[in-house]
Amino acid sequence: MAYRVCVIGLGLMGASLAGALRGFREAGIVGVDTLGAVRAKAKLSGIVDEVFADAGEGIRDADLVIFCVYAHNIPDMIAANVSAFKPGAVVSDICGVKSGLYARLAGLLPDGVDYVGVHPMAGKERDGFDNADPAIYKNSGFIICPLPSSGSESIELMRELAGHIGAARVAVSTPDRHDAIIAYTSDLMHIASAALCVEYHPEMTSAFTAGAFRDSTRVADINAGAWTELLMDNRAHTMARLDSYIDVLRRMRGALADCDTARLYELLERAGENKREILRK
Amino acid sequence: MAYRVCVIGLGLMGASLAGALRGFREAGIVGVDTLGAVRAKAKLSGIVDEVFADAGEGIRDADLVIFCVYAHNIPDMIAANVSAFKPGAVVSDICGVKSGLYARLAGLLPDGVDYVGVHPMAGKERDGFDNADPAIYKNSGFIICPLPSSGSESIELMRELAGHIGAARVAVSTPDRHDAIIAYTSDLMHIASAALCVEYHPEMTSAFTAGAFRDSTRVADINAGAWTELLMDNRAHTMARLDSYIDVLRRMRGALADCDTARLYELLERAGENKREILRK
Repeated sequence: MAYRVCVIGLGLMGASLAGALRGFREAGIVGVDTLGAVRAKAKLSGIVDEVFADAGEGIRDADLVIFCVYAHNIPDMIAANVSAFKPGAVVSDICGVKSGLYARLAGLLPDGVDYVGVHPMAGKERDGFDNADPAIYKNSGFIICPLPSSGSESIELMRELAGHIGAARVAVSTPDRHDAIIAYTSDLMHIASAALCVEYHPEMTSAFTAGAFRDSTRVADINAGAWTELLMDNRAHTMARLDSYIDVLRRMRGALADCDTARLYELLERAGENKREILRK
Repeated sequence: MAYRVCVIGLGLMGASLAGALRGFREAGIVGVDTLGAVRAKAKLSGIVDEVFADAGEGIRDADLVIFCVYAHNIPDMIAANVSAFKPGAVVSDICGVKSGLYARLAGLLPDGVDYVGVHPMAGKERDGFDNADPAIYKNSGFIICPLPSSGSESIELMRELAGHIGAARVAVSTPDRHDAIIAYTSDLMHIASAALCVEYHPEMTSAFTAGAFRDSTRVADINAGAWTELLMDNRAHTMARLDSYIDVLRRMRGALADCDTARLYELLERAGENKREILRK
């Protein structure tokens, strides 16, 4: 019987993933979404072979089930469909925060079903099925976050999937280390960018802007709902990074207040050195 | 006699400007730089018709003199060459902060010489003649900052120049308003980006990064010398914007600490609304 992948949630990430999975193990691709309009468009566009409103119907017979919904919905969806999972199935999610979700999954999965979450480092400013594009995963980062119970075959399956969708840089990490690093590379970046637009100079026009403004505020037009959840789910790590960021800004502010050019120069010079070092990692 | 433009300082901005000015009023382009190697390369590359080590030799016979050096050097260079300026010449600079410079220019210019500074909103992460590229001004913003004494013909000359080098959005502003707006659109953006790299998560690798990291830290590899001067020159306005930014970040931090999802959502939602409004300006 042919390999079967079920993608649950056909928003930006899920629909893009379904499209990018075309050809993966020559699998049949099954989509699940609660919105009828999304299901109709998904079927019409051909990114899925079948669509269901009910998660259980998609999960049934799937060799690989990937949850692409808000993290807080996943435990209930698994609990409600425990009997639907095929023995030997691998279950995954693409959520951006892992520790809290994994704690809530404990004891929930039926025997014979393996779980290994992933975090594809891709996205877009605009959300939803209509903005889906399988190419968002091309040349992206991709983190595999196994549970202690995750089988090595499942981890290898995720590596294979990462390669198929075009991810260029793959890491394997514990959930807590993942969440701590992401608090810097993603959560802090989104907070810093959004905060730049909460207060702005009312007399500015585009004549006063250049690349620094464009790039530093690119993600400021943020999906407030999704990011409130992501940031709250990772709040301890995010607060620590934010405290560190505010402290650096206060040091820069202090150097300006004291006309301390040497201190300001040193901070800017360190930023440049670190950035060049980061690019080599 | 043919029109003659003198560009003083052939670093990234000056050399790019000299190249972009080719064909402007069919002018002869004269470059000035203290470094012999830069002069040799400038002549060889053909971006200038003549080069001089001495500013006075370049200024002599020039109809338009544009200072592309650090702001703190400009008053002395003008004072040392007062007798060299051609009657009727227009003098300009491309410095990113205007009020302090203009205050120091008062009474310095000889009679019959008009001054009108500009601020092309262009640049690059990497500095110096070797990174020069006339195309950096294409589709850029461009601000003309007249003195109260600036003649309207000189202002129109700068509009013509902006159009010639490819600037797409031109504004005219008083020096103080310019400096206040730039403190937000440029100074704060560079500080926010640099600060993101002063402290970073040591275990991060490129697998953990996506577009938000790339764009938010793009200008973090900053020219520390140039930016220390720019920020210090605009320190009152920059400190005000930085205080406002730190305050927003603290409100976000407070919402996280209090698990106040409504407050965090509201801040993120406002960021998005403002960003969309800014893009229409």
